[in-house]
Amino acid sequence: MLTCNKERLEDKIKTFSKFGDTGKGGITRLSLSPAAIDARKEFCRRCQALGMDIKIDDMANIYATIPGEEELPCIMSGSHVDSVKQGGNYDGILGVLTALEAAETIITEKIPHRHPITVVIWTNEEGARFEPAMMSSGVITGKFDKDVMLASKDTEGITFKEALETSGYMGSEENRTSAEKCKALVELHIEQGPVLENEKIDIGVVEGVCGMVNYEFTFIGQADHAGTTPMKYRKDALYSAVKTIQYLHDELDKLDSKLVYTTGKISAHPNIHTIIPDLVKFTLDARHQDPEVIKQVLDIIKAIPEVVEKCEASYKEAWSRKTVRFNPELVSCIEKNAKEYGYTTKKMYSGPGHDAQYLADIIPTTMIFVPSERGHSHCEKEFTPIDNCLKGVNVLLQTILDIDKTI
Amino acid sequence: MLTCNKERLEDKIKTFSKFGDTGKGGITRLSLSPAAIDARKEFCRRCQALGMDIKIDDMANIYATIPGEEELPCIMSGSHVDSVKQGGNYDGILGVLTALEAAETIITEKIPHRHPITVVIWTNEEGARFEPAMMSSGVITGKFDKDVMLASKDTEGITFKEALETSGYMGSEENRTSAEKCKALVELHIEQGPVLENEKIDIGVVEGVCGMVNYEFTFIGQADHAGTTPMKYRKDALYSAVKTIQYLHDELDKLDSKLVYTTGKISAHPNIHTIIPDLVKFTLDARHQDPEVIKQVLDIIKAIPEVVEKCEASYKEAWSRKTVRFNPELVSCIEKNAKEYGYTTKKMYSGPGHDAQYLADIIPTTMIFVPSERGHSHCEKEFTPIDNCLKGVNVLLQTILDIDKTI
Repeated sequence: MLTCNKERLEDKIKTFSKFGDTGKGGITRLSLSPAAIDARKEFCRRCQALGMDIKIDDMANIYATIPGEEELPCIMSGSHVDSVKQGGNYDGILGVLTALEAAETIITEKIPHRHPITVVIWTNEEGARFEPAMMSSGVITGKFDKDVMLASKDTEGITFKEALETSGYMGSEENRTSAEKCKALVELHIEQGPVLENEKIDIGVVEGVCGMVNYEFTFIGQADHAGTTPMKYRKDALYSAVKTIQYLHDELDKLDSKLVYTTGKISAHPNIHTIIPDLVKFTLDARHQDPEVIKQVLDIIKAIPEVVEKCEASYKEAWSRKTVRFNPELVSCIEKNAKEYGYTTKKMYSGPGHDAQYLADIIPTTMIFVPSERGHSHCEKEFTPIDNCLKGVNVLLQTILDIDKTI
Repeated sequence: MLTCNKERLEDKIKTFSKFGDTGKGGITRLSLSPAAIDARKEFCRRCQALGMDIKIDDMANIYATIPGEEELPCIMSGSHVDSVKQGGNYDGILGVLTALEAAETIITEKIPHRHPITVVIWTNEEGARFEPAMMSSGVITGKFDKDVMLASKDTEGITFKEALETSGYMGSEENRTSAEKCKALVELHIEQGPVLENEKIDIGVVEGVCGMVNYEFTFIGQADHAGTTPMKYRKDALYSAVKTIQYLHDELDKLDSKLVYTTGKISAHPNIHTIIPDLVKFTLDARHQDPEVIKQVLDIIKAIPEVVEKCEASYKEAWSRKTVRFNPELVSCIEKNAKEYGYTTKKMYSGPGHDAQYLADIIPTTMIFVPSERGHSHCEKEFTPIDNCLKGVNVLLQTILDIDKTI
């Protein structure tokens, strides 16, 4: 079977790891920062050297295209080059570099293809400099209002619009991709979790992106002196919160085992060891692929009484996201190709969000996951062995060629 | 029976409430601050006007004395004039003003007494400006090393020694009180809790100060992504802490009902809603008059396993205090006098610490508690109705005279 070039892919990863290098194994490459612009320049230089045609849209999304034999919509693959602060060398960038490697293999091996093949860079996926995340894929698919996004400011007060204008990468709206221009999109990404590695799986066949809810809970008690207030007179907001966290664990554990839920953030007021807390807040993040299970989560939340251990208990939704299901034909194609290469596979839903979930609304889309060592992500320790990267890009290459021929 | 003068006591409370007035019903009168020095000046002015003799020791403790008919050790009463930030008009100062009112009654009513009667102000009881609390009573009773205390700094870097030298209130070590100089000490204080008010009790007959322990618990888990880490792979330090808080409540609730315990402070790291916490800490403060119950608390703490919900659990003592028992003869005298006035009484232990607990080591000592409205303390809402203050000072007056005659 066709394979891409391992050394060439390794060189790509190594080269791009210099843009924003923290010197501690990772990168800080915030969206449209000098480091991110260096990465864009290197990407464009390499694409031009391969004879690809580069188009840039009004959100600085870059589309580098190999023409096809026929005038058809393109087959697209790619991801993002921006990172979080002190992020790693795989999240996002691996999706760009594997798409480029697949294109380079097609070009250098002179593999015939009817459709144009486009490698894409989406601008500001992380939202680490300009909120929200997945900003530019969101704008071109109608999720976000462009003017609101242009006004988004970084911590130094620079707007996204200003950063866009000075970046040299602001193109025109007519270059945006669309349902007419694009036949299919495949995004390769690291898993960002431990499942593939723990289960010794080569390829995550991504069926969609989990729906999620994020709630904030508040408990109001009464602040009193730890040494003078008998237990029976107390309204201890922390104990009220503890009881509720235990209730949530007890009830949520009864739901489907694929549900993940997290109480990641907690605060107590006045947070002094000799004073009974009068105000405690915590968050609950819950994700599952099946909207019915998310509904069950909400039913469990709604069953929390208004008074827990003599304290007022309340909650509000901070945000939510509906489950996105990827194109079943593309999902099957990924699975079939991985198996033909002899790779182990696992069908799974993504917990985190990706640009692909927005594009899935207008273009047949799917994703390929490769393992993350020890599940590390959004940190300098982020790592995927090169053999796993190669397996991912091989599946990507074959899938692009299958889409070209048959789908 | 003898009574003090309600209007005169009310005037004292009103006058002293101006020193450090926050304009919101309370005071900020940190130790040796200009506001505290104004209060000391007014105290000395009033004592001198009553013909009392003033001595000051090397820790700025002030002793204002009415001579007795005989050359005998004095009978002492008083408390402190310093407050916490945004504190109230009763904690500490009421003990000084009631002692002064009792002395003023003895002087103006020409009540004969064999022993000298001394009104005392202890310096820096709160420890709110210079740590630790009860600093000066601690130094003269050998609890603290004086040189270490002199080096204690406030947030502006001023040492206690510098504040002492510039205050105008640094006297000599030979003026410190002692077992030889003082026959008995009675400190009147607000309860700082809700028990007396809730049970409609006039006078708290204080048998001693509760022993206490303060522990810090630490839970170490693993930080992972909320969206990608299946529940079975998680090491959630917050859930481990929640389980332990619930365990502590379940077990501590089985002990004596007078035990008070508080988990007042909690922190989680990294405290982000989409990340499983890898480090959680909380504190436990537990107080009881019986050392055997405190031992049972420690047994419950020691039974916590090293691993709770897959996280490392550990704990360490932050500090502890042994139970102090006041002089039984003095305690009985307070109770008898309160009953003779027709006041309702309740024997109780103090949860918070007071200067009297240190003096109790060298001088026969007890305390009188008066009710705190709604248990408020260390806040601007701190309040004790004047009728309750009067009841307290009447019991104090009669007790001083009883000690003079019979004890």
